[in-house]
Formats: sequence, structure tokens, C-alpha cells
Amino acid sequence: MKGRLSGPRRSATATIKAETTSPAPFAHSVILGIDPSLRGTGFGVIRLDKPHPVALAFGTIICPKAWLLSRCLLRISTELQEVIREHRPTACAVEGLFFAQNLRTALIMGEARGASLVAAAAGGMEIFEISPRKMKLAMVGYGGAQKSAVSQMVRRMLHLVDLPAPDAADALALALTLAQETGRHSIAAPKQL
Amino acid sequence: MKGRLSGPRRSATATIKAETTSPAPFAHSVILGIDPSLRGTGFGVIRLDKPHPVALAFGTIICPKAWLLSRCLLRISTELQEVIREHRPTACAVEGLFFAQNLRTALIMGEARGASLVAAAAGGMEIFEISPRKMKLAMVGYGGAQKSAVSQMVRRMLHLVDLPAPDAADALALALTLAQETGRHSIAAPKQL
Repeated sequence: MKGRLSGPRRSATATIKAETTSPAPFAHSVILGIDPSLRGTGFGVIRLDKPHPVALAFGTIICPKAWLLSRCLLRISTELQEVIREHRPTACAVEGLFFAQNLRTALIMGEARGASLVAAAAGGMEIFEISPRKMKLAMVGYGGAQKSAVSQMVRRMLHLVDLPAPDAADALALALTLAQETGRHSIAAPKQL
Repeated sequence: MKGRLSGPRRSATATIKAETTSPAPFAHSVILGIDPSLRGTGFGVIRLDKPHPVALAFGTIICPKAWLLSRCLLRISTELQEVIREHRPTACAVEGLFFAQNLRTALIMGEARGASLVAAAAGGMEIFEISPRKMKLAMVGYGGAQKSAVSQMVRRMLHLVDLPAPDAADALALALTLAQETGRHSIAAPKQL
């Protein structure tokens, strides 16, 4: 290992790594993935196990259209806190915003993210942001992959009997991507939130 | 009262009102105002009293630039919950977004709003959105009023010894505006969140 880091170029790389990632090595075995959305927040908890990772819980937090904004946000935060209390994840992967049609959409997306992040931070987790493109690349090998391809791969990797619903599948895929990215000691480490 | 609602026009107005505002009359005596912002969320609690409203608490929740996003959001939510626990407001006025430079700004603004709204909703309050323009119109009589003019008016209305800091003054002004708007039974009632 020493030899691999001895060249000047490698040293520079190592320095960048130290600044952009968490100083401690990634030592998380239970990871929560969140795909925040006002009406349907996906969540998924995985445990890194041998011979393959295991899904401990996953689902979608549905908030009916008739509900007021604040009621939805409280539900998102409360349900996530419940999941965290039950499964005790120590790391969290949240989907990064890749596209918003307009300021109004970005604001609502931000509100759902804010409610989710409050729950994750209250649980004392290390929180990382992963873009949908990065997640799809890690899962399917193609950044523009369709949702169904992600769901299929999630089912295969976690040995699930049924295909998970799209939002829950995305959340599980975010958790799997975080484990994969940090396990690889990738230089392009996920951004910490 | 029956006579006042008997004409077809009045009935129509009454119907609109019932759909856009809370069905119950505004019967709140302790009101929380929130001006959400990632690094400096203003808050203020007022009690509607005679001969003038009284400020029970106000301040700014500061989050240093070095803090991670999730830490800031948790702090905003936790501090607001603490204020709510102490003063038990039953209504809340949150500043509406009036302007965002770009999608990134709107997203961050949304995250701070989301964290604030989770706290307010957890407190079981009726939550309303008030635009800065509406607040300035109600407080100073001019929608484009400067922040200092708002602070001055807040100090005068609440008989404060010192001029409140800008973010806290805005939050107190939102609470005062909500009381004023709903007290008037205005048809253009604040939007419920």
C-alpha cells in the first residue's frame, strides 16, 4: 500500500481524498437510503452482510394530495425517525437534486429533503448525497438507465422475492451505491450533507 | 348576520372564504413567526394583549458556515421546537418565498423551510404563509419597504426597548401581520400550509 501512495501524483490524490470525504474510514454496516418527495418519499435500509447485502426494511411514505404541506413534512420526518429507531442505521444516502422544472418545484423538493434530513441528522448518522446519475451508473452501468432496470438490479442484489416499488427501489439503490462507492475508496466520494 | 349573508353575491364570497381559510374563526392569542434561512432563521413569538401585543421571545438561529447542511437543519428544527414548547403558540406565520436567484438557492431555502415546518407541525399549530410584500404592506404600508422600516415599526408596535435584529424583526412582523390579517377577516386570507 505504501508503494501505491509514494509517487507525487498519488500523494496529491490522497490529500484531496482527506479533504472531501469523512476522515474516518467507512465502517457502516447498516445504511439508510432516502429518495425524498412530498407525496411519496422512498426509504430503504440495508445491512452489509455475506454472501450478499440484506434489505431490513423498505417502502414509500405516501402523503395524499389533500393533505396540507406541513402535515406531509411532519409525516415524512416522523416515519423516517421510526424506521431509524427500529433499524439503527449509521450512514444515510440521500438522493441529490438533478433536475427541477422551476423554482416552485425546487422549493417543494427542498422542503421534502429538509424534513428527511432533520430525521436523519436527529438519528446521528453520517449523511451523504448521491446523484441519480451516479446511482444508476453504480447499479446498472448506465447513468440514463430506466427506473425498471434499477428495480430489477435491486431485487437481484438483495435477493428479494418481489420487485420493489419504484421509490423504495431507488432508496435501496442509493444505500447500495453508498456502500459500493465508499467500499471502493473512490476518489469521487459522495458529498457529505 | 343572516341578513348580511342573504344576497347571492355575499353567499359566493362566504363560500370562497370557507374554502380558502380555516373553517374555525381565528382565535389564537399566541402566535409564532418564522423567517426561515439556512444560516440565520429568525423567530418571534407574540401574545395578543391589551393595550398592545407583547413579544414573548424572539431571536435568530445562527448556523456557522462551517456546519454541514444536515446539522443546520437539525438545529433549526430543534431550536424552534424548544421555543414552541416554552411558549405554546397555536398559530404560526411562515415567510413565503418571493424570490430565488436560481434552483440551488430555491432548494436550500426549501430545506430551511422544511426543517421549520416540521417543528411547527409537530407543535400542532395552524400554519400560514405570508409573503414579504404582504407583511411589509401590513406593517409599513409599502410592499417595497426597507428592512430597517420594518424593524422600527415592530419595535413601536411591541413597545420594545431596543431595535430587534433584522431576521428576528421580520419574524415578529410576520406574526403581527397574521394577527392583523385574520383579525380583519380579510377575504385575501393567508394561505394555509
